[in-house]
Amino acid sequence: MEGAITFLSNPKYTQYIYETKATIVLVNEDLQLEHPVNCTLIRVKNAYECVAKLMQMYAQSLPKKTGVDPLAFVSPSAQIGKDVYIGPFTYVGEGVKIGDNTRIFPNVTIYDGCQIGKNVTIHAGAVIGADGFGFAPNQEGYEKIPQLGVVIIEDNVEIGANTCIDRSTMGQTIIHQGVKLDNLIQVAHNCEIGENTVMSAQAGMAGSTKIGAWCMVGGQAGFSGHIQVADRTMIGAQCGVIGNTKGDGETLIGSPAVNPKMYFKARALDAKLPDMYRQIAQLQRELDALKKIVEIER
Amino acid sequence: MEGAITFLSNPKYTQYIYETKATIVLVNEDLQLEHPVNCTLIRVKNAYECVAKLMQMYAQSLPKKTGVDPLAFVSPSAQIGKDVYIGPFTYVGEGVKIGDNTRIFPNVTIYDGCQIGKNVTIHAGAVIGADGFGFAPNQEGYEKIPQLGVVIIEDNVEIGANTCIDRSTMGQTIIHQGVKLDNLIQVAHNCEIGENTVMSAQAGMAGSTKIGAWCMVGGQAGFSGHIQVADRTMIGAQCGVIGNTKGDGETLIGSPAVNPKMYFKARALDAKLPDMYRQIAQLQRELDALKKIVEIER
Amino acid sequence: MEGAITFLSNPKYTQYIYETKATIVLVNEDLQLEHPVNCTLIRVKNAYECVAKLMQMYAQSLPKKTGVDPLAFVSPSAQIGKDVYIGPFTYVGEGVKIGDNTRIFPNVTIYDGCQIGKNVTIHAGAVIGADGFGFAPNQEGYEKIPQLGVVIIEDNVEIGANTCIDRSTMGQTIIHQGVKLDNLIQVAHNCEIGENTVMSAQAGMAGSTKIGAWCMVGGQAGFSGHIQVADRTMIGAQCGVIGNTKGDGETLIGSPAVNPKMYFKARALDAKLPDMYRQIAQLQRELDALKKIVEIER
Repeated sequence: MEGAITFLSNPKYTQYIYETKATIVLVNEDLQLEHPVNCTLIRVKNAYECVAKLMQMYAQSLPKKTGVDPLAFVSPSAQIGKDVYIGPFTYVGEGVKIGDNTRIFPNVTIYDGCQIGKNVTIHAGAVIGADGFGFAPNQEGYEKIPQLGVVIIEDNVEIGANTCIDRSTMGQTIIHQGVKLDNLIQVAHNCEIGENTVMSAQAGMAGSTKIGAWCMVGGQAGFSGHIQVADRTMIGAQCGVIGNTKGDGETLIGSPAVNPKMYFKARALDAKLPDMYRQIAQLQRELDALKKIVEIER
Repeated sequence: MEGAITFLSNPKYTQYIYETKATIVLVNEDLQLEHPVNCTLIRVKNAYECVAKLMQMYAQSLPKKTGVDPLAFVSPSAQIGKDVYIGPFTYVGEGVKIGDNTRIFPNVTIYDGCQIGKNVTIHAGAVIGADGFGFAPNQEGYEKIPQLGVVIIEDNVEIGANTCIDRSTMGQTIIHQGVKLDNLIQVAHNCEIGENTVMSAQAGMAGSTKIGAWCMVGGQAGFSGHIQVADRTMIGAQCGVIGNTKGDGETLIGSPAVNPKMYFKARALDAKLPDMYRQIAQLQRELDALKKIVEIER
Repeated sequence: MEGAITFLSNPKYTQYIYETKATIVLVNEDLQLEHPVNCTLIRVKNAYECVAKLMQMYAQSLPKKTGVDPLAFVSPSAQIGKDVYIGPFTYVGEGVKIGDNTRIFPNVTIYDGCQIGKNVTIHAGAVIGADGFGFAPNQEGYEKIPQLGVVIIEDNVEIGANTCIDRSTMGQTIIHQGVKLDNLIQVAHNCEIGENTVMSAQAGMAGSTKIGAWCMVGGQAGFSGHIQVADRTMIGAQCGVIGNTKGDGETLIGSPAVNPKMYFKARALDAKLPDMYRQIAQLQRELDALKKIVEIER
């Protein structure tokens, strides 16, 4: 589009620079071109980072929502920091603490006693501090185990829309600083997520599981309860992690979770299973026939 | 139940017509009976469609909710069409446009700048236009990539309860006309869903993925980011689609997604894997023994 | 921590009793110690149950929320029992019935006509009675099948945050007494869940499926539509149940669901598939070579 500014960062898309109708294209300084182009190139160190910066500058120029909306409910005993935004229909329970510069969008529910750090963003519909899922069976049914703990969310955390983080049975469910949670995630009671771990939408953790720092978790991945995931672990989408992981920097995929090499080999051989099955039977028949021949010859 | 009207459409259930206590049964005009029945039969071209029509007529006779509920929040800059219903505790952000005859149930959140078409239904708790999940890593943690785009929902779309559709980073996340999304679905930033595609509950799409028109997606299915799914593709429940699909009308199942024939063969042979494993070892032993005999004989 | 009271129930953790800094430890009466300990032991019949009881006593001592919050919306035609709590921004539709002692947290939506029993707990953001997902295809797109039924939730049920239970097409979606549903669960139209069944977060049931009594369902498990799950069935996390189960007390795991022994054997052999594949080819080569020798000798 004429007048537009765009960017080229991934070399895979270099071909498109010859046909773009944009007026200006931000490119990496080392970009090599094979033909002339119709647009003005601005060469920068890192085009992707540069665009992110430009977007941040633009975003900062937009009017910023602040203040507690009169349609929010904030308990009188809650402590709200400076420059906080709390949207309409958001419920902030008794004794909740919210740090400076935190933004809480509409229709969020924060149960009594939870603590939210500074520069936290909580998107619409998220539920922080609902009861952990704990019941003790008896003859007639299940008895509720009261959930007396809280949720602690440290600084610079982002929590997606409709994500649920349950309070602990006793003690705390902790989301450490810098963690980014996408939408519709389930974090059960007594879980802990280490700093700067990133988790994609619809992932879920069962109770008391601890995920380390700087991990990346794919969408719809699931974690059994009472397990430990080491720092910098990479968990694929739809992965099912059912035990402790081995250590720093491991990559896991599949359900139950295994290493990617093994996983992709096994899944590729799925297609050959019927042939393998037939071949084994065929081998048995050929071997039996040969045995008979050898037997007769003797 | 005496006085009741019911219907028979699926031939599988024909046996029940002899014992029903209903007074009237709608049946397909070509229904063949082997015994007399106690009920009055009304023969119609298509009993199932006829019942759907009757239900629609009944539903239309019910009082219709309209108007913006005084307990909703609608930004002064939002543009609301004719005969719109907006329920209590629903938040409609700045500059949002909502077309005629659209119904939005309670506790929905529509972020600033999104566009909702005509005859759209959005169920309770859905979140339209929350930030896409975009962060750039740096030494200390992750930096937020501002999400400056919007969500566009075209006409005749239905969106289920607690479903989340994220705004795009730049440009638009688009839900084309006639799409039906069930509950608790995740649609990430910059996704596009083609017209009349139907998606079951808890399915999820990662960023920038495009699904074609007239597709059917099963529950809990997941799509990797940046992929393209062709028109009329059928995706099974819990399927994991990790690459572009091949073309019109394909059916996929399993995680990673493969064709159903291959999938069911492989999964059926799972049960025989232990036998296959033992048989291979047994074949090796028998072959070695035979080799020895042949060797000696020579 | 000095002054703290804790408990030891699982023998796996007995080692920690020698190093704990807690002042009092509740233990099972039959606990055998190998060394002296620094804390005071209180021996009880069942330490775990005892702690649950203590927690319940403590929880009962806390101020209890009751009453309909003035920020809730309750339809004038709704019937509300005694000692009910309804939180801010919760919507209770027309003709809804709510039994005694039921607690409904903020931002819940209960659509018209649904019935909620006694001693029920519904956590924040849950949606009860949204339309079932029913559409009939025609040439231009899909026509909505009106969802004219309701949801019935019996006594002593707990429903997690952001869980969705859809109304039936006709008749009722029923959650029987004592059922416990975790967060972010999908229960589709016309489903039925038998008494005292427990279901973990992010599980999902497609339409018209019936789950028996006293079942346990793992997180992210999914059920196809129109199937029956027998009483006391155990369903593993991420399981995909695609047909009727066989009977009382069965355990199922994997997707598609199979028995655990078979599942774990097959998944363990996944790692050996590449070897098996190579070995089959190798066997064929060896056998062919041997055949040639035998042929020549004759």
